[in-house]
Amino acid sequence: MAGLGLVVAGTLPCEHGSVEGEVLSQVRPTAADYDSVGRLVKHLVDLVGSVVRSAGFDSFTVSVEGSVAKDTWLKGEVDVDVFVWFSRDVCKRSIEVFVEKVAPLFASRGFLVELRHAQHPYLRVLVEGFWVEVVPGCLYTGGRPLTAVDRTRLHTRYVVSSLSPPQRDEVRLLKSFMKGVGVYGAELAVGGFSGYAAELLVVKYGCFRRVVCSAAGWRPPVILYVEDGLRDAVKRLMGKYPSSLVFMPDPVDPSRNVAASVTPRSLGVFVLASRMYCRSPSIKFFHVHGCKASDSVYSSYLGERIENMVLVELVFKERVAPDNMWGMAERARKVASGLLKSHGFIVVNSSTFCDPSSLRCAMLVELQERVRRGLQAREGPFAWDAVQADRFISKYLELEAVGPWIDHDGRLRVLVKPPYTSADELLSAKLAQGLPRSLKNRLDSVLVHTGLNAIDAARRLSRQWFRENIVLKPCWIG
Amino acid sequence: MAGLGLVVAGTLPCEHGSVEGEVLSQVRPTAADYDSVGRLVKHLVDLVGSVVRSAGFDSFTVSVEGSVAKDTWLKGEVDVDVFVWFSRDVCKRSIEVFVEKVAPLFASRGFLVELRHAQHPYLRVLVEGFWVEVVPGCLYTGGRPLTAVDRTRLHTRYVVSSLSPPQRDEVRLLKSFMKGVGVYGAELAVGGFSGYAAELLVVKYGCFRRVVCSAAGWRPPVILYVEDGLRDAVKRLMGKYPSSLVFMPDPVDPSRNVAASVTPRSLGVFVLASRMYCRSPSIKFFHVHGCKASDSVYSSYLGERIENMVLVELVFKERVAPDNMWGMAERARKVASGLLKSHGFIVVNSSTFCDPSSLRCAMLVELQERVRRGLQAREGPFAWDAVQADRFISKYLELEAVGPWIDHDGRLRVLVKPPYTSADELLSAKLAQGLPRSLKNRLDSVLVHTGLNAIDAARRLSRQWFRENIVLKPCWIG
Repeated sequence: MAGLGLVVAGTLPCEHGSVEGEVLSQVRPTAADYDSVGRLVKHLVDLVGSVVRSAGFDSFTVSVEGSVAKDTWLKGEVDVDVFVWFSRDVCKRSIEVFVEKVAPLFASRGFLVELRHAQHPYLRVLVEGFWVEVVPGCLYTGGRPLTAVDRTRLHTRYVVSSLSPPQRDEVRLLKSFMKGVGVYGAELAVGGFSGYAAELLVVKYGCFRRVVCSAAGWRPPVILYVEDGLRDAVKRLMGKYPSSLVFMPDPVDPSRNVAASVTPRSLGVFVLASRMYCRSPSIKFFHVHGCKASDSVYSSYLGERIENMVLVELVFKERVAPDNMWGMAERARKVASGLLKSHGFIVVNSSTFCDPSSLRCAMLVELQERVRRGLQAREGPFAWDAVQADRFISKYLELEAVGPWIDHDGRLRVLVKPPYTSADELLSAKLAQGLPRSLKNRLDSVLVHTGLNAIDAARRLSRQWFRENIVLKPCWIG
Repeated sequence: MAGLGLVVAGTLPCEHGSVEGEVLSQVRPTAADYDSVGRLVKHLVDLVGSVVRSAGFDSFTVSVEGSVAKDTWLKGEVDVDVFVWFSRDVCKRSIEVFVEKVAPLFASRGFLVELRHAQHPYLRVLVEGFWVEVVPGCLYTGGRPLTAVDRTRLHTRYVVSSLSPPQRDEVRLLKSFMKGVGVYGAELAVGGFSGYAAELLVVKYGCFRRVVCSAAGWRPPVILYVEDGLRDAVKRLMGKYPSSLVFMPDPVDPSRNVAASVTPRSLGVFVLASRMYCRSPSIKFFHVHGCKASDSVYSSYLGERIENMVLVELVFKERVAPDNMWGMAERARKVASGLLKSHGFIVVNSSTFCDPSSLRCAMLVELQERVRRGLQAREGPFAWDAVQADRFISKYLELEAVGPWIDHDGRLRVLVKPPYTSADELLSAKLAQGLPRSLKNRLDSVLVHTGLNAIDAARRLSRQWFRENIVLKPCWIG
């Protein structure tokens, strides 16, 4: 069974050790937190109701969804999603005009407003220091088609009815663990587990300890069904999500894979961290600990590596939604890796970071050697492949090549001076033209930094990201 | 048909152009050559007869085989093989004691004598400046089993009866061409075509021009049968010689592949040179031209490459038959290439040369970069492969590694200082222990030279070999 990635919930007792106790004391909201969040929620519902009414809508209801509604939020990390539900008959038209009618009213009352777009447009409004999503939706009375917005409402209901009050703390532990090891969040920047996925894992396994001690044995394809009735849905998911490693049908909509966002890296991190945690629990794994390292620690890691670092900055012309930006940065990273590899450079590590607010993404590439000196062998066709061989020979006789000669395997080869002797030269000259047009069109510039400039730029952009790429070893390993 | 490697003899006229005329004028023996070789042959037959008789043998006959007997020898390149044939009843015992009885008698008459071993021992004797092979054999009156010695006699008969007198000159052209491009000789040092193979090719195609213009279109597997009756033998040969690229059943013993010795490199060279010759005949392709380059030409090729050259000398304890020596050197080259590759060095060219008389083989290795500076990434298992992952992590936590971290693909990786920063260091430390024991036991020492020392040593050993590995482009290309 394990070989198929099927995991049976552990039979560990659902108790808390001292580490879990310590974490909970930091992530469980206090009575005062509940009070203030309660007030915020009430205020939001009133505010949104009043604004939407002022915009001329009348047939709607307002609800709060997300971790606050489910009581699975972490202390200090409130996310409140406010949904505005229209009845079916006016819904389509209402959603279409919602943003353009409502946004100016929030702005005129002095709130900072952002427009976002998922399946349809919605708003983000800064209220009392919290970014609140204000999302219009259709109130179906059951049946398909489900939209992402419907689903959210059903997720709230499902989780509220499936988790006992003590299990909400188990979700808090799991979320804090996932954040600590860097796999919390379905957005591309993380490629990990959504809050809903974490909640479902607690529904499935019963408690935090059982989740991680089961995850310790996961191997892809990882197949997770929260209820036995979802067993059959997995096969369909495997067809529908061919690149997923983790398959977890959504109990609310079994044709959807709740774990579709989990990348190989996130899965690897989660499994390994879980294994290590089960063996030896420690607060290091949780976000309340945080991995910090002083600058002196960095320098002991850097040394000769500095000279082999290249940082490419992609500067966008205008705002792009964060998920799109991360997606494009990741595509650019793959293009850069391929380009470097095809020119004989050896990439030992590469990573991206996006800062949507400054319209910048950066890609840090560490090479085995950024500058190369020698001649490179180019492999040609077999000497007996007449047409290709003749073409190869005439090409390299014209260039300043050594050879061609016939090698032991019968193939033609030449030695040539590589066209680019340093990786930064190559990226400066060729990266931009290798990017997909949809990305290129959105870029203002592509800047290439090396050595100390590269690491300074990386550190300025994100100390956490910089740390990860210099130290490389997660703080919870070893 | 061509796609299957089957080649139909061309219908080119069998005429000589000016190039072939010029070559023939240099390689065709003159009347005076025939006279002196005739005298030598007679002298050898008498000499060998007298020595063998003195050794106490009486029931034997002496014959001369090889290119002189077939009249396909090149002017100035006489090889005379003298066979001593015993009748079947005394043969086995006679062959066993032949060498030990006959060798001292040659020596006592003042001749230089060498012992060699093929299927059984034989002698090489220096007579009037020519190394003459003196080989004992059994005179069967037909039927199997054939030995290599029987076969030689039958080869002589077959060639003599199959080639018209003008075709003997065609063989001379072909041999000179094969020598010129470096594919003449079945010994491991060349890995090319034997004289007999060249003769059979002329039997098959009729003349030099048709051989090379057919070879121009060869693609492996190359299937060559001299007579239609040998067509069926090819299939059996393909089973028996799985690593051969050229299949040519011996008309004298169809279970034997006359072209078994042809390496991929030799096939590639022969096909490419043939194609270029057919397109544009030139004396450059023939051994009477010779490829020469002055030292100033070398230096224009060398430049920055010098620093990336390593020469490994294998010094043997005692004499080894040349073919064995070349075989061992080639094995050592493959071990060295694998070792370098596994440590991240990029070999752009490698070649061996043996000098049996000085008990030395050398291996010249040119690297993209002989010295490396950066850290290397080591790829570990997937993070979810529990046992291997744990082993990998504990191994590298103990070493001075950067990481481990979980990479995009879910695998663990670390950065380590490579244990050897230069290829010569690596070869000095590890090559000897990687060699097969049969070779190691025969070595007195393994010396590693770099840079200028390496190229000086290579030049001292063989200017021709040195030239080939510096210029790399055969002089008949371009």
